Formats: sequence, structure tokens, C-alpha cells
Amino acid sequence: MVTQTQSITLALDVMGGDLAPQSVLRGAEIVIKRCQQANKKPPHFLLFGDEMKITPFLDKLPLLQSFSQIGQTDKVVSNTDKPSTVIRKGRDTSMALAIQSVVDARAQAVVSAGNTGALMALAMRGMRLIDGIDRPAIAAPMPARQGGKCIVLDLGANIEASAQMLVQFAVMGGVYARHVLELENPRIGLVNVGSEDQKGSASIKEAADLLRKVPLAGDFIGFAEGYDMARGNVDVAVTDGFTGNVLLKTAEGTASLISDKFRRMRHGHIFKRLAFWLASPALAMLKHDIDPRKYNGAMFLGLNGICVKSHGGSDSTANATAIEVALNLAEHNYNQHVAQDLPKALAVLQDALVDMAAASDT
Amino acid sequence: MVTQTQSITLALDVMGGDLAPQSVLRGAEIVIKRCQQANKKPPHFLLFGDEMKITPFLDKLPLLQSFSQIGQTDKVVSNTDKPSTVIRKGRDTSMALAIQSVVDARAQAVVSAGNTGALMALAMRGMRLIDGIDRPAIAAPMPARQGGKCIVLDLGANIEASAQMLVQFAVMGGVYARHVLELENPRIGLVNVGSEDQKGSASIKEAADLLRKVPLAGDFIGFAEGYDMARGNVDVAVTDGFTGNVLLKTAEGTASLISDKFRRMRHGHIFKRLAFWLASPALAMLKHDIDPRKYNGAMFLGLNGICVKSHGGSDSTANATAIEVALNLAEHNYNQHVAQDLPKALAVLQDALVDMAAASDT
Repeated sequence: MVTQTQSITLALDVMGGDLAPQSVLRGAEIVIKRCQQANKKPPHFLLFGDEMKITPFLDKLPLLQSFSQIGQTDKVVSNTDKPSTVIRKGRDTSMALAIQSVVDARAQAVVSAGNTGALMALAMRGMRLIDGIDRPAIAAPMPARQGGKCIVLDLGANIEASAQMLVQFAVMGGVYARHVLELENPRIGLVNVGSEDQKGSASIKEAADLLRKVPLAGDFIGFAEGYDMARGNVDVAVTDGFTGNVLLKTAEGTASLISDKFRRMRHGHIFKRLAFWLASPALAMLKHDIDPRKYNGAMFLGLNGICVKSHGGSDSTANATAIEVALNLAEHNYNQHVAQDLPKALAVLQDALVDMAAASDT
Repeated sequence: MVTQTQSITLALDVMGGDLAPQSVLRGAEIVIKRCQQANKKPPHFLLFGDEMKITPFLDKLPLLQSFSQIGQTDKVVSNTDKPSTVIRKGRDTSMALAIQSVVDARAQAVVSAGNTGALMALAMRGMRLIDGIDRPAIAAPMPARQGGKCIVLDLGANIEASAQMLVQFAVMGGVYARHVLELENPRIGLVNVGSEDQKGSASIKEAADLLRKVPLAGDFIGFAEGYDMARGNVDVAVTDGFTGNVLLKTAEGTASLISDKFRRMRHGHIFKRLAFWLASPALAMLKHDIDPRKYNGAMFLGLNGICVKSHGGSDSTANATAIEVALNLAEHNYNQHVAQDLPKALAVLQDALVDMAAASDT
């Protein structure tokens, strides 16, 4: 479905992130190289930031130079800036200008490794919510068995989520899995503490009832438990932002615990050290397989525009992944597919809510 | 603090669990052997179940035979029985009789690998809640770095938890870490999506305010994120039962994903197979280290009595762990320590709630 001739322009907040601007610029260079290796037209980049700081690095990246132009500003959003302050006073920061370029249709997507709260606030104000979506959701992939991935949303945009919001997340997650990941019939699950119907909070039970009726870009397979994502039993895991955030960080923590266990063998008795040494090729393969940099790039879904948050500590490899996430969303016309699927889903959702209200009145 | 002369009696629901009665009986035998190896007086066991089914196995376990007696019943709680049905009709099941023996002070703790909902319902009815505790909590350890453990509660007894309940969980978890795990100053954290004060739901922010005031058997270190448990940054992680359940199962899922990644190397090209083969000693060590059977035994805290749930699929090794969890709680007089710490904590909690209500009125 990717039109190879269509030219994508990506806006980068070059000043966002702990290793900016170098890691962002080098990330973009990596993406261009990969596109060329794959015989694909590379995207064009709008680099928002301070030319004085960008140029020394850009001079060493001739490829990026020929595929980019600089949007000059010496103002930046810092990690400690409050979203409310940025909204009031941050209009000419590199982050805000990058978002504005998408609003003005000069770019198809924006990527930033800066302050998450500020990015969400600016993106919501600039791009605005898609009609019919109550709240944006943050979505990201988690590694699953058989080399698969599971998209989890929401990861923290909403501490609580109503049944209606969970249904909207399922619609948006399904469209992503079908049209961007190109899974024909993604399995969409609702995160819960058990698979039986009577489990969970009132809003989760209501969401499950609704999801059985609402048309989705995939199959609603019912409840998914904490282990179903990693086990590859579900392609899209729908949950509130509190649970999703804890879930993702628990998976990260567990993976780092296991690599720590291996590393500690190095300092054990001679058998342990030998075992560690023998295991190193396998460990290197595993490390490559579940490298968190390969899962970078949290998508802000539900906005009239594509906005991807790269991790604050991203190096160039991690930033390249986040840029590719944005590129993929743009190439696969993610938002057009949402706009296409949403009205039908929302109509059924509204009818179901009316029926439920009527049923509870009688 | 353990009085070696004190004789502990443990009640076992021998008929509970997928591999019962054999795995339960053999688990008890393992515990007796371990006690003897450690020069510790083994516990005495009350074995509730059908003598006809128990005797063939018990005949092969002479050690357990000399440290146990059978409480005869041919009634069992099945995994599909509803808690409400068991409460009404299940009085003479092996599970109910085992709990009753603790209520009657014939045993100091009960262990069952049977139906979780039924066990919780029967334990609550028989043992009743400790005065001042609103709801029971399910607690279990998770592996952490440096060979440590982190106690997480609640793991599913309460889908939602008020600020007051979270404070009670912190009191009970702290007492466990200090008096049973023998950590002098356990670090008690509240699970949240970030470490900043303004993060989280209203009830979590309120709980954090309260926890800064309420005396705990340890230090309240503020918010803990999903990765802080595995990283060993916290000894007790307090959360609602929904989040705790998803968190624990996500950690399980991630660990199984990583072992799956290794196993798949066996079927890869020759280099992968070689790497897998070389890694097997290290993998065996890791497997031993994070063997889920070593983390079996979920404690029902907040009841006037000790009740431990062993995983339904437990083999004898896993059941031995759960029995030892119960034995530890009994030996360290867990409930007496809770009874001692609770009144002061509750008094401060009530005062703080009154102050908060007054502050919000003005």
C-alpha cells in the first residue's frame, strides 16, 4: 500500500533529548542510508533548532545535508519546563515549530526526544484531536514470542480510561496493526486480571461488552492478561495509561534483571565465569533481539497529525527507530485509515451506549 | 527472633491443585527434610482430604507420616466452583476444614493450591479481617537484582484500592519485610507512572501524602515505577490489585519470552545452535535463579490467621516453597507484629484523614 513515489517530509525537534542535537541528526542520517539501501526514496527532513549548534554536526553528515533544511530557532523546551509554561511561552521553541510545520502541512510527521508532557500539550493544541476521539493515547510496541510485536496503548496519556475511551484506543490500535504493521486480522485484547467475563472493573466489563459490537480493524479476542503480550497471544493490547505504563516498565525491568543476572556470573566462581564466557555469543544474539533501541518511538495517536516521541536518552540508533516509526505512519497513511474506520465504529459505539443506558433504566 | 522450641502446626488442603494430593504431600515431605538438614524442628502437618486417596502416597513418605495426621473428608472444592457456592455448601470440604483448624487454633497456618476465589472467601469468613483493616491483600515476592526480592501487594484481591487501603497495605507489607524477611529498614514504595509528586490518580497522591505521615515498619521512599521492583530499588511495592496482578504476570511473561528466545536458537542456523549449546550451563544457572517455583506462595494478608495460596499447577518443589512461606509467617509471628504496629499507624491515618477533610473544607 506504500506509494514509493510519494515524498514524505519529517519534522525533527533537533534540540530535544539528552544527546541532542548530535544523536537526532545522526539518527536521521541512518534512516536516509537505510532507505537508499532498500531502494526506497528517503524522506526529506525539516531540522528545527539552533543553526549554530546544528551546523558543526551537519557538516559531517553530507547525506543528511542534501535531504534537509534548517528551521532556525535558538529557543528550546527543557526537561524541567512545565507543559502549561511551554503552552503559554513556548511558541517559538524547536519543539513547537516542528509541530507547527505538521499543522501547516509542510511536514507529514514530527519526531522529538524532548519533554514528553510538553510535546503532548503542544501536539494536542496544534494538531487537535480527531473528531470523535475523546483523548489521545500513547502507543508503542513490545517484543513478543516468535519475533513478533505487540502494540500496547495507552502508555500514560490517561491515568484513567472510560469504557468509551478504551473502545477508541482499540479502534486506533487495530488500524495501526492492520495498516502499518500490515497484519490482516490483528488480535485485539483488553488488559485484565483474568480471562473470565466477571473479572475486572465496571469500565473494563463495559468496554468488553462494547468491543464485541463495535467494528474493529481486527478481531476482539476478549481479555488479555499480563503475560499474553510477551507470549504473542495478542497483537494489540488495550488498557488505561496507568496500567500500560507500569506494564511496559515492568517488562523493561524484568529484561534488565535477567541481563544483570548474566553479568553477575562474570564475578562468580570459576565455573560461573566460564559459563558466562561460553554464553556470550548467545547473549549477544539475545541482546540484539530485544535491544530496547529497536522498540523506541512512542506514537501519540488520536491527533490530526503524526507525532512520535523518541526516548529522552536515545542515541542515534534509537532515534533512527523513532524516525522510522513516524515515517511508517506517514507512508501508510495511518490517519486517513483512522478517519475512514472511525465513523462506523463510533456510530455503533453510540448505539450500544444508548442501548446499555436504556437497559439499565428498565 | 525465631523461637526454635515453639512447635508449628500447618494445615494443608491436600486435595487442592492440579497435581494433588501427591504434589502437596511430597512438598510437605521436602519441607520436613529441609528443616532437619538445617537442624530445625520440623512443623507438624494436619492433612485435610480423602484418606483413601492420601494413604497410597503417604505410605511412601515415612517422614511425613511421622509428622502428620489426616483430617478426613471426601469433599473437595473444584476449580470451577463459585466462591458463593463454596461459602454456602462447602463447609466440610478439605479447604474449609483446613481453614477451620486455624480458626480453632489447632494449626497456625493453612496452605492450599486450590480455587483462589473460594480460598479467599472461606478464609475471610473463617478468620475474619484484622480490626482496622478494610480489605485483605494478596502479597508475593518478585525476583530483584543482587539476588534480592521485592514484595508486591495487592496482587488481585481488590480491583480498586482507596488511599486508606493502600496505606494499610503498606503497613502490612512493611511488617512482612521487617519481621519475616528480617530487613531492618525496608524501602516501601507506592507504584506509580512517574516519580514526580504531581503524577498519578487522586487516590495515589492522597496515599502518598498519608504515607509520609503514617509510621511504617520501614521507610516510605515515595513512588516506584514499573522497573523499580526488578532493579531492586524497593523492598515493598504497594499497589491496587489490578495493577499488581498485571505487573506480576508481565514479569512472568517477559521472563518466559527471554527463555523462549534462547530455545529458538536451537532451531536456527549452525552458529545459533552452537551459541545455544555453549550457553546452556549459564542458562541452567539462570533458570535455577529465577525458577518461578522459588517464588510460589501468595500470602493473604489482613486476616486473623495465616493463609497461603500455592499456585494451582504447583509440583512438589513449588508446594514446598509455599509451605515454607506459611511456616515463615508463623515462626516470625507475623500477625502479632501487625497487631502491634497497626493501632499507632491507624491512629495517625485517621488524624491525617480528618486534617485533610478539614483542609479541603476551608
